[in-house]
Amino acid sequence: MFSLIIMPRFAETDALGHINNTVLPVWFEQARTPIFKLFTPTLDVNKWELILAKIEVEYVAEIFYGSEVEIRTSVERVGTSSIVIYQEVLQTNQLVAKGKATMVHFDHEQKKSKPVPDHIKSILEEHLVGH
Amino acid sequence: MFSLIIMPRFAETDALGHINNTVLPVWFEQARTPIFKLFTPTLDVNKWELILAKIEVEYVAEIFYGSEVEIRTSVERVGTSSIVIYQEVLQTNQLVAKGKATMVHFDHEQKKSKPVPDHIKSILEEHLVGH
Amino acid sequence: MFSLIIMPRFAETDALGHINNTVLPVWFEQARTPIFKLFTPTLDVNKWELILAKIEVEYVAEIFYGSEVEIRTSVERVGTSSIVIYQEVLQTNQLVAKGKATMVHFDHEQKKSKPVPDHIKSILEEHLVGH
Amino acid sequence: MFSLIIMPRFAETDALGHINNTVLPVWFEQARTPIFKLFTPTLDVNKWELILAKIEVEYVAEIFYGSEVEIRTSVERVGTSSIVIYQEVLQTNQLVAKGKATMVHFDHEQKKSKPVPDHIKSILEEHLVGH
Repeated sequence: MFSLIIMPRFAETDALGHINNTVLPVWFEQARTPIFKLFTPTLDVNKWELILAKIEVEYVAEIFYGSEVEIRTSVERVGTSSIVIYQEVLQTNQLVAKGKATMVHFDHEQKKSKPVPDHIKSILEEHLVGH
Repeated sequence: MFSLIIMPRFAETDALGHINNTVLPVWFEQARTPIFKLFTPTLDVNKWELILAKIEVEYVAEIFYGSEVEIRTSVERVGTSSIVIYQEVLQTNQLVAKGKATMVHFDHEQKKSKPVPDHIKSILEEHLVGH
Repeated sequence: MFSLIIMPRFAETDALGHINNTVLPVWFEQARTPIFKLFTPTLDVNKWELILAKIEVEYVAEIFYGSEVEIRTSVERVGTSSIVIYQEVLQTNQLVAKGKATMVHFDHEQKKSKPVPDHIKSILEEHLVGH
Repeated sequence: MFSLIIMPRFAETDALGHINNTVLPVWFEQARTPIFKLFTPTLDVNKWELILAKIEVEYVAEIFYGSEVEIRTSVERVGTSSIVIYQEVLQTNQLVAKGKATMVHFDHEQKKSKPVPDHIKSILEEHLVGH
């Protein structure tokens, strides 16, 4: 499991007084950085190897401005060329949101998916949910 | 079906040269405005009656800056107090993304869900998928 | 003067109940699209010729969700290689914000500024403030 | 001087391959949190006492994804009811952007400015530029 602490931003609140729902995919993407680094260690955007196929977000409770959140990122499943990530957001020890992201290892030149290399697969499997 | 035309913004692109994935939930929320108006005709944020329970987004193809997108919004299902919305994004006549959003009719004072009124249910049913 | 109508987005509100201040630079950038098109008619991001050197935004009045805004974009000054844009935001006929943006015609390969071509200068001068 | 370290987000890049200009006001707002806390120690949005009157941002150099930035926040001037903040962004020891923000101590009920209290003025003066 990877953990990231984020301080919610004022600009991320909305008129209902809490963090707006559209912010969660941004936080989740940021929290997947350790996964991105497995494929592109320098984070050089010209050498990016992953594309996003699908996301899901469940809004469990209101998220407040003024108090840090922790984002926990695990691997739910590793397929031949795809990876399903499972993520949770906690604020003051309460689960406030959870999400999934399906990413595909992608050859941008050939415009098709390619297998996840074995050495990355091994690292990903160390971060499986419940591990 | 409700239709909304959006011109992608430069600020919505990312380093891979296309519209960033986190923009889709923002566009989808904007395209649900006609649904919001059924519950809060003035869009007065102090009289808001809906909360978002879950979203899903599938990324079908790259979305480009420089060309309008159309967002089509339909109702997939109306439950007692919840509504499932189905949405598609088209660019130059191609499906580029699709999504679902589950919203709940909510009493912010009592902090619990409440039934969708019958007269709103009737209007929502006129916008069912495939209608 | 160029005019753009924008419907504020729910995600653009903040906890004070109005449009968050950080949204204005996004709207202003979007409203400068006709200027971008003078330099890159196709809006192809790989042929971009402008960089942003400076912005200023003055917040005159609260901007509300639920009512359209108009963004008026004029040219304040055209220099050898730079352009100063002046912009205003109106909501229900009231001035709610104004801003300036200094852009530079830029050669991304040589990494230096280059003169604004005369035929573009002529078009820009048709949109001078007060014209 | 207050210092904040931020890791740029992928969603904050744009098609030119760097951090988009509209992100700077968001970072600067986040870096003003210690100023917000002087007026609203709990960061309770219902007790907010500041409004933003004006911002300026100068873009000095490209800001890259993949490397942390430091935001340095100082006080340029304290007036009767207004405060001018000066901010710089550094990445790998280089100045990449700078900005100013004019905030006003505001009575949201009476809808008018009010003096900055002396005890806050004293704290602000400890953070004057060059101090």
